[in-house]
Amino acid sequence: MAKFLTSREENYSQWYNDLVIKADLAENSAVRGCMVIKPYGYAIWEKIQAELDRLFKATGHVNAYFPLFIPKSFFSREAAHVEGFAKECAVVTHYRLKNDESGKGIVIDPEAKLEEELVIRPTSETIIWNSYKNWIQSYRDLPILINQWANVVRWEMRTRLFLRTAEFLWQEGHTAHATAGEAIEEARRMIDLYAGFAENSMALPVYKGSKTESERFAGAIDTMAIEALMQDGKALQAGTSHFLGQNFAKAFDVKFTDQDGKLDYVWATSWGVSTRLMGALIMAHSDNNGLILPPKLAPLQVVIIPIYKTGSDLEKISEYAEKIKTDLGKAGLSVKYDTRDTQTPGWKFADYELKGVPVRIAIGPRDIANNTVEISRRDTLEKSTIPFTGIKEHVTELLEKIQVNIYNKALAFRNQNTHYCNTWKEFKEIINGKGGFVMAHWDGTAETEARIKEETKATIRCIPFDSVPEEGKCIYSGKPSSRRVLFAVAY
Amino acid sequence: MAKFLTSREENYSQWYNDLVIKADLAENSAVRGCMVIKPYGYAIWEKIQAELDRLFKATGHVNAYFPLFIPKSFFSREAAHVEGFAKECAVVTHYRLKNDESGKGIVIDPEAKLEEELVIRPTSETIIWNSYKNWIQSYRDLPILINQWANVVRWEMRTRLFLRTAEFLWQEGHTAHATAGEAIEEARRMIDLYAGFAENSMALPVYKGSKTESERFAGAIDTMAIEALMQDGKALQAGTSHFLGQNFAKAFDVKFTDQDGKLDYVWATSWGVSTRLMGALIMAHSDNNGLILPPKLAPLQVVIIPIYKTGSDLEKISEYAEKIKTDLGKAGLSVKYDTRDTQTPGWKFADYELKGVPVRIAIGPRDIANNTVEISRRDTLEKSTIPFTGIKEHVTELLEKIQVNIYNKALAFRNQNTHYCNTWKEFKEIINGKGGFVMAHWDGTAETEARIKEETKATIRCIPFDSVPEEGKCIYSGKPSSRRVLFAVAY
Repeated sequence: MAKFLTSREENYSQWYNDLVIKADLAENSAVRGCMVIKPYGYAIWEKIQAELDRLFKATGHVNAYFPLFIPKSFFSREAAHVEGFAKECAVVTHYRLKNDESGKGIVIDPEAKLEEELVIRPTSETIIWNSYKNWIQSYRDLPILINQWANVVRWEMRTRLFLRTAEFLWQEGHTAHATAGEAIEEARRMIDLYAGFAENSMALPVYKGSKTESERFAGAIDTMAIEALMQDGKALQAGTSHFLGQNFAKAFDVKFTDQDGKLDYVWATSWGVSTRLMGALIMAHSDNNGLILPPKLAPLQVVIIPIYKTGSDLEKISEYAEKIKTDLGKAGLSVKYDTRDTQTPGWKFADYELKGVPVRIAIGPRDIANNTVEISRRDTLEKSTIPFTGIKEHVTELLEKIQVNIYNKALAFRNQNTHYCNTWKEFKEIINGKGGFVMAHWDGTAETEARIKEETKATIRCIPFDSVPEEGKCIYSGKPSSRRVLFAVAY
Repeated sequence: MAKFLTSREENYSQWYNDLVIKADLAENSAVRGCMVIKPYGYAIWEKIQAELDRLFKATGHVNAYFPLFIPKSFFSREAAHVEGFAKECAVVTHYRLKNDESGKGIVIDPEAKLEEELVIRPTSETIIWNSYKNWIQSYRDLPILINQWANVVRWEMRTRLFLRTAEFLWQEGHTAHATAGEAIEEARRMIDLYAGFAENSMALPVYKGSKTESERFAGAIDTMAIEALMQDGKALQAGTSHFLGQNFAKAFDVKFTDQDGKLDYVWATSWGVSTRLMGALIMAHSDNNGLILPPKLAPLQVVIIPIYKTGSDLEKISEYAEKIKTDLGKAGLSVKYDTRDTQTPGWKFADYELKGVPVRIAIGPRDIANNTVEISRRDTLEKSTIPFTGIKEHVTELLEKIQVNIYNKALAFRNQNTHYCNTWKEFKEIINGKGGFVMAHWDGTAETEARIKEETKATIRCIPFDSVPEEGKCIYSGKPSSRRVLFAVAY
């Protein structure tokens, strides 16, 4: 099976594409830049959704749904916002097709032209704040803590499956608060929640911090992000949380009466993660044999494969396997017993490796005789023979170990590839060489940031929350700097 | 609270609108025909989704996601399909906005015109079958049993919250099979699943049957539907399942090699239910005090309200209430203890009635003294005082009773309002009078069907699966008929 994959070393980008296709995660559709998320890929996304949704609800958020369409005029209300999104908007201009009179098939009906064009949401701040205007009068109506699971469209010119597609699935939280402090706290809570999710569920270590002004969300006062490192040394922004100040409240005239009877604009946050997380998950852990999925997000955690020659062997193995399956199922694990006789065990081994199933159990006649099974873990490809008794405890523990091991491996890789550079030469060598994160001093100007990007393609991924104050000189301009920031070439 | 609602008797339609708005379920958005589903409404939809998703997976289906956009040319491939949907399609023609050079704000960038217009999916048969073409070569690739949760757009001219909106949320199943028989079986399995869901979860009795040719889905060979009766005597189509024959396989050239090596077109079904179910749920059960929700779909099943004058009373009540809450929570019930001091108990009673919370528990100082609580059920508004001991069992049983009672009430109403008519005079009297379902003979012609619709607005809702063969004469034309069909004026 692995032969179908280009190796990471040969061509990382091709390896990724091959993997997404061969592991049946997604494919390009007939519509430029839009993907089809196939059942196996979607099953992983459902696991991601379920856990995030649980975390959102546990922190007091509720779900709602706002329209796909945004009147064009709404966009113009917040100046930075329209500037940021206008260039990639899909626009609906008509609401009817008709048969062409000259017989050329179906065409747009020119009589069904909309008075005002509708933009397909690239993000929903404007349509949501237009609703909040009617929902908020007093401090008693605050906070509003709403999340939405939705599809959005950004007309990207260069697309890649999961990483950058014209349409993608995401969640967007939009909260409204009585004070700046509360909104800032919420924005920070959510980036922390994302970081926790990335580390605990995705086994993906991330750096947390604020974006520089030039990398901020269009309309935000502060954009916080989590940044992960992929195996090719490039960074990937995996989630963002924005403190929006009163920008959208002002644009949509959303005021409230505070406890002292004073009228003020409402404070806002928004935050989101998308199907891009799928790209991060695939890229961060997988190898030349295929996907490596952290057990917490694997749709199938354990597969049992019978190895037999005769029908009577299979019968005995099945009895044994079904017991294991039931036992593991009771422990809350998702298990499949694959009895297909159209494929060889070898083919199945390779296929489940490609699909990243964390634990494989193989059972042959000798195992039955010895009361054992052969267990193989996907992350290290190690095999061991263990006794039938206590298999439930063994597998449960093994899955936990795998989850931890995948995280530790990614963490070690990330740490080994986080460099503290003090000279421009060294900076360029790393960035142009094997890549990775670079912690370096920066003079705080957008000009220097732009120059560095121009010369190396590296951008400031974030100003990490935990970067310690340290006097230094800007890596590029030599001007004074008081802390290091995180650079990388990013997806 | 109830005073905010127009009564059903006064104006049923207004009652429904008032209820949707006042119970915080949904509201109209700034975009014509599109609604905002508010958190409380969305929480009910989430319960509907969760149960349906469970049922789909239990019957072997998996979820996936296909693009929002459909190239215009795809539509033309299936003649009946384009005929059915072309008139209500939102069409994307451009992919960029820009600043107007004469300073009129943002406008469409004429240079960013799409070569081929994209239709926002009104349903996804075409884009999905275009993908299936690449997925299916042999009988080994079949069946494909895929479902998608998505938003769709049909540009309706007259819209009503939940019942008919330009954008709505739904699920659409799209399956591919090797034989006609298997596809027909699948289509029937899904309409049975929908009927079971309506009856078991929504407490909504439905008639099941096939649509007549003129009411069929655009592109289907057979459309099966479930039809429910609303309190105003109108029918509501709550779900459909289509046997599509080989129509879409032919349109998209999807062939497979069967077990004998012969090439044939693939057989298809599609089936869906939408946020329209919310409308059915609200309309079928609620009263002039507000929503009545079947416990299985109520986001909040039990509310506990303290009745107190002094702080020390509240303290004692709270201790007692928290115990009950924990106890009921452990039994898997969703419970809220409402200690807000900004609202009176009377206000809260009315508000939770409006919101349809099935069981209300009120606790006052006398209850503490007597070791009792006062329980009120939303469906009958009956109150009773019960001992503290055994409250968990009592509430659990009560919720089951409420679920059954709501169903039985709806069933009795539906049965009382299903009339067997044998004369045109009687038919018109019922249809123009209090409404309801009419089982009557029909000559089987589209012409008669159209005439009846023209004269009475009644349509054939379905040819019920269980209607027994019976010789008779068409209610309208007097021509011979061999079975009764189900008529009603419908939403």
